[in-house]
Amino acid sequence: MEATEIKQREKRTKMKRSIIDVDIHHKTELEDIKPYLPRAYRDQIDLWGWRLPGSLWLNGGVKVGQMADSTPPDGSFPGSNLEFMRKQLLDPYNIEYGVLTGTEYFCQASPDADYAAALCSAINDFTCDHWLANESRLKGSVFIPKQDPLLSAKEIRRIGSHPDMVQVIVASGAEKPYGNRFYHPIYEACVEQDLPFTIHVLLEGLGINAPNTGAGYVSYYPEYRACRPQVMAAHLASFIYEGVFEKFPTLKVVLQEAGVFWLAPFLWKMDEDWKALRFQTPWVKKKPSEYFFSNVRVSSQPLEPTPNMEIFRQLMNAVNASETVMFCSDYPHWDFDSPLMAFPKLEDDLWERVFYQNAAELYGLPARKAQKEE
Amino acid sequence: MEATEIKQREKRTKMKRSIIDVDIHHKTELEDIKPYLPRAYRDQIDLWGWRLPGSLWLNGGVKVGQMADSTPPDGSFPGSNLEFMRKQLLDPYNIEYGVLTGTEYFCQASPDADYAAALCSAINDFTCDHWLANESRLKGSVFIPKQDPLLSAKEIRRIGSHPDMVQVIVASGAEKPYGNRFYHPIYEACVEQDLPFTIHVLLEGLGINAPNTGAGYVSYYPEYRACRPQVMAAHLASFIYEGVFEKFPTLKVVLQEAGVFWLAPFLWKMDEDWKALRFQTPWVKKKPSEYFFSNVRVSSQPLEPTPNMEIFRQLMNAVNASETVMFCSDYPHWDFDSPLMAFPKLEDDLWERVFYQNAAELYGLPARKAQKEE
Repeated sequence: MEATEIKQREKRTKMKRSIIDVDIHHKTELEDIKPYLPRAYRDQIDLWGWRLPGSLWLNGGVKVGQMADSTPPDGSFPGSNLEFMRKQLLDPYNIEYGVLTGTEYFCQASPDADYAAALCSAINDFTCDHWLANESRLKGSVFIPKQDPLLSAKEIRRIGSHPDMVQVIVASGAEKPYGNRFYHPIYEACVEQDLPFTIHVLLEGLGINAPNTGAGYVSYYPEYRACRPQVMAAHLASFIYEGVFEKFPTLKVVLQEAGVFWLAPFLWKMDEDWKALRFQTPWVKKKPSEYFFSNVRVSSQPLEPTPNMEIFRQLMNAVNASETVMFCSDYPHWDFDSPLMAFPKLEDDLWERVFYQNAAELYGLPARKAQKEE
Repeated sequence: MEATEIKQREKRTKMKRSIIDVDIHHKTELEDIKPYLPRAYRDQIDLWGWRLPGSLWLNGGVKVGQMADSTPPDGSFPGSNLEFMRKQLLDPYNIEYGVLTGTEYFCQASPDADYAAALCSAINDFTCDHWLANESRLKGSVFIPKQDPLLSAKEIRRIGSHPDMVQVIVASGAEKPYGNRFYHPIYEACVEQDLPFTIHVLLEGLGINAPNTGAGYVSYYPEYRACRPQVMAAHLASFIYEGVFEKFPTLKVVLQEAGVFWLAPFLWKMDEDWKALRFQTPWVKKKPSEYFFSNVRVSSQPLEPTPNMEIFRQLMNAVNASETVMFCSDYPHWDFDSPLMAFPKLEDDLWERVFYQNAAELYGLPARKAQKEE
C-alpha cells in the first residue's frame, strides 16, 4: 500500500458514494469452530489433528500473506476481528455491503467428504452467529464440501435460505472442471436457493485436487499465481461446453481473484472454435461469449495492469465490464486493492456499475441508504 | 477454407514476396519408420503393437482432423506426400522455407523412455532421408524422448548438427512444466547445437502427462482447445521463474499453436507480481516480459480474432510482434491458416518481420533468393 493511501485511510477519507466489496476474507480459527462439530469429529481431531492439506505455495491462510497493518490490536489473525474490520475497511471506504469469502477452504481438498461437510457446516454456522448477526453490512458465502455434490446440495439447502447468505463458494482447485456433470446437483440447489456459485482462486494442486497446471506442478509462488487464471479458464470453458447454462439458465457463476483481461482473447478464440466445432456439443446453442455475458460475473482484484488507457478501455469493453465486473478489495490479503486505486479513472456510469450496481443486482442487495457527501 | 481462397490457390496465385512457414505437419506412417528401429523393438511391436496413447479428443494424428482437400491423389495421409505438399502449399504460397513439425508426437507420452528414444531417432532419420534430402526448402525438427532428458540430449547431439535440422520439438503435454530443472540437460544440448526449443500444443492429458488443465480433465474437443493456451502459459511461467534464461541466456523457446494475444495480460500480470514477489526467486533478475521479448518466439496460428483493428494493433504491440511473432500455416490441419488471410492487413515492415525475418533470424535461414514479382 502506498504511503499516501495509508494517510488517506488514517484520515478516514470517506468515498463520496458507498460501494459494494465482493471479496472480504474474514478468518475463523479452527479452534473456534470446533464446538460446532459433531462429537465424533472433535474426538478425531483430538487424536489425529485437523487432517487438512498444507500450503505448498503461499496463500490466504498464512499470516505473512496479509496486509502489513491488518493484524488487529488484540494480536488475532488478520480478518478475524469484526470491530477492527469496521475501522480499517468498512467505515473508511464507505462500504455499504461487503461479501465475506472466508479463509477456511482447505477442507474442500480433503479426501474425507463427510468430514469436509461437517467442517463446512461448522464454518457456515460460525459465520452466521459471529459475523452476519453482528454487522448488517456484511453478507455471507456458503462453504460446501465440493468433493461430494450431494452433500454440498444438502448444505446449500440447509443454510442457503439464511437471509444474509448471498452465494455458494468453492476454491478453484478441483478434481474435475466445475462444469462436469458430477457437480450438477450443486447447481440445482444454487438455482433453487437463488444463490450464485462463486469460484475463488485457492487450493490449486493441493490435497485431492488435480496438479495446478495442465503440465503438472509449478515450483514457486509467483509462478503459481501466474497460473491461476488458467485454472479459472478451464472452469469457464467447462461450464459452457458441458451445457450448464442451458440446463440451469438462471445460474450465475462468479470468477473471483483470477484477473479480468485474460477473458478477452479467451472468449474471442472460444467463439471462433465454437463456430467450427459445435457439432460435437449441440447442446451449446449460443456463442460461448453470450453465456459469459449473461451468466458469469468477475471480481476485479487483481486486475491486470494495462500499459495505456486506450487498451484498458478496449479490454473493459471486450469483457463488457459494465455488466460483468464487480469491484473487490481482497481484504486483508497482502495484495489488497484499495477502491481508490483499483482502477484507472472510470467514466461515471461505468464506475457506478463496477462499484455498486453489478454486485447489487447479482446478490439482490438494496440500493444505497444514502449518498454521503463530505 | 473459403471458396475464394480455394480458387486463388488453384490459380497458383503467387504471393509477391516469399515467406517462411514455421509449422508444416508432415506425416510419417509408423510402418515406414519400422525399418529404422532396432530389432528388439520391431519384435515387440509385432507381438504387442505400437503401445502409444490414443487421442482422447481430436488431434493432428486423425485423418478427419485435416483440411478437406489435403489428401494426396494416391490416397495417403495428408502431409505424407512431398510432391503433393509442393503443389498444394510450397509453390502456390511462395514458401521460401518451411519448417516441418511432424505428427508423431505420441511416443513422447509413453512410459517407456527407451522405446520413445528409439522411435524419435527413427522419426528423425526418416525425416532426413525422405524429406530434407529431397526438398531444400524444407527444414526439420528434432523429436526427443522428453520423458528422459539425458536421452533427449543424446538425440539432440546425434542428429542436431544435421545442416537442415533447425529446432528441437516437444508436445506441450508434460509431466512437469518445461522450466523445471529435470529438463535442463535438454537445454544444455540445445544451446550447444544452437537449436531453438519448440513447444507445440499436443498430448495434453495423454499417456503419462498431467491432466490437461489445473482442474483435471475436460470432456470435449472445443473445450480441450480452449485450454491449450493455458498449458503453454504454465510452461512460459516455468521457464521464467525457474531461471532457465539466466542459466541458458542464448536459449530460444518457441510457443507453437497456442495463440498469441493471451500473452499480453499474462505478461502484464507476471511483471506486476515479479515486482512484489521476486525475493522468492532472486535468480529471476529481469521482468518476466523482458525474458519473453529476448528469448521467446510465438507462431501465429491460431491467432485470436480481435473485434477491431485498434485492439489488434494494441495487442500486436503489447507482445512486440515485430520481434516475436512468426507466421505459420499449420498445414494440413483442418484449421490451416492461409498466409493471405491469417492476419488483418499489416504495415509493410511488420508484415516482413512476421512473414520472413523473425523466422529467418531465429532459425539462421538465408535471405530470399529473389523477390518475385508477378
